[in-house]
Amino acid sequence: MTVYNNTALPIGVFDSGVGGLTVLKAIRSALPNENFVYLGDTARLPYGTKSPASIERYAMQATAKLLEHDIKLLVVACNTASAVALDALQAQMAPIPVLGVVEPGATAAVAARPGGSHLVMATEATVRLQAYSKAISSRDPEANVREQPCELLVSLAEEGWTNGDIAKSIVRRYLDEAETEDFKAESIILGCTHFPLLRDVIAAAVGDAVEVVDSAVTTAAVVRDILTENGGLAPEQLQGGLKLLATDGASRFARVGGQFLGEPLTAEDVQLVDL
Amino acid sequence: MTVYNNTALPIGVFDSGVGGLTVLKAIRSALPNENFVYLGDTARLPYGTKSPASIERYAMQATAKLLEHDIKLLVVACNTASAVALDALQAQMAPIPVLGVVEPGATAAVAARPGGSHLVMATEATVRLQAYSKAISSRDPEANVREQPCELLVSLAEEGWTNGDIAKSIVRRYLDEAETEDFKAESIILGCTHFPLLRDVIAAAVGDAVEVVDSAVTTAAVVRDILTENGGLAPEQLQGGLKLLATDGASRFARVGGQFLGEPLTAEDVQLVDL
Repeated sequence: MTVYNNTALPIGVFDSGVGGLTVLKAIRSALPNENFVYLGDTARLPYGTKSPASIERYAMQATAKLLEHDIKLLVVACNTASAVALDALQAQMAPIPVLGVVEPGATAAVAARPGGSHLVMATEATVRLQAYSKAISSRDPEANVREQPCELLVSLAEEGWTNGDIAKSIVRRYLDEAETEDFKAESIILGCTHFPLLRDVIAAAVGDAVEVVDSAVTTAAVVRDILTENGGLAPEQLQGGLKLLATDGASRFARVGGQFLGEPLTAEDVQLVDL
Repeated sequence: MTVYNNTALPIGVFDSGVGGLTVLKAIRSALPNENFVYLGDTARLPYGTKSPASIERYAMQATAKLLEHDIKLLVVACNTASAVALDALQAQMAPIPVLGVVEPGATAAVAARPGGSHLVMATEATVRLQAYSKAISSRDPEANVREQPCELLVSLAEEGWTNGDIAKSIVRRYLDEAETEDFKAESIILGCTHFPLLRDVIAAAVGDAVEVVDSAVTTAAVVRDILTENGGLAPEQLQGGLKLLATDGASRFARVGGQFLGEPLTAEDVQLVDL
């Protein structure tokens, strides 16, 4: 069975909340002809504080819901679910391709700065899982990786305070915490789906010599490669559409999510589903 | 049945996470002879994004667990659960007295500034429920109330950045958003269990003329009043003890919670329970 040979079928994007909309935005921008269905498991966020067994179970339920929409490819836009449940999801979804955000980010960082020093800015939960460190080291044993929890940047992005002095001071403080005499970052990996909103502030703080790797953008490039290779790209005459699903809180999803997607949303754009 | 006639029985304190430890700290400081059992439902936080039906169900399960510890009084230290589920919990726990944090905070604000203008600083979820506005208006129909969501202050407190320029700037920005030509706060209500950690920064920002009402402190005073009245106060020769329960993440509970409780904790101090 090759479900994805119908090229007009949607790409599924799954996250624990609204953060994955930055990933969706990057993929839509790279592939404007595609249809998309996005599911944010807002009723059970944050995944980061849950046990690995719970995260895997939630992710399996969420992606089973996306299967009902006949998706041709699945993007796990949640760093925590990518780190914990990618193998299980690939097994459940086969032969549909499944990719996470960690591996594309690690690949791009290593390509940009071989043998270099990488600073992963992420949530506490992602840092604890050390998924970026493992993915980078397996690609480049010479690489030097440090992971910095930056919890406040999540609320900063959700609040929409993505520029100005407060954002600058908070970014500066996290960089100061991460960098030491013997560790100076040559690449910064935005290891949380919220952080592309803070890309400009972070880039300005580290200066031009440091590569800023946006996992959303690198994941979009991998999606294009996979669909190009398996002949699954939507035809160019197609005007791509978007369906948004959430498990709770449609109006908050619309309000905060609109900033992440880069276009205004209303609660009516969001369909509530039960898992 | 009057379970609470054994004065050495513990006081139960319930919250969705670690924030309620500020309330526990205030009660312990007011009543050092008491025994306490604290339950943080960390597996299911945050309550604020859940539906009222779910919040009530979670709160009922959590407090049923506290009943197993033979508590003589229950404090609902979670603003969201106080706003949504207090009546249901009082029915479930009768004849054990149950109190939330909203009512004591509202009472203290009204007493301090009769007919005045009150600014409630709280989470988005608490603001949406308008519990403080209702509680204040029912006590003082002349009062003027504004509720300001201050989501970033939660992560600021959890990060431990409770003083310095970043904290000052964020507090200033929220105050500027809340105050207008025709609304100048005469009292500030700390309407989130995390905010007592930011009390000094907030008090400095508003100046001495503004009363800062700490719900934790006012709740502690009400606990003392209830136990004095019903003869439930622990005897003075008792050296009060403390049992900490959580539904997930003992080490994060200990690390972040230690700041809230005002004394260092280790993961071994926290017992994991299933609800």
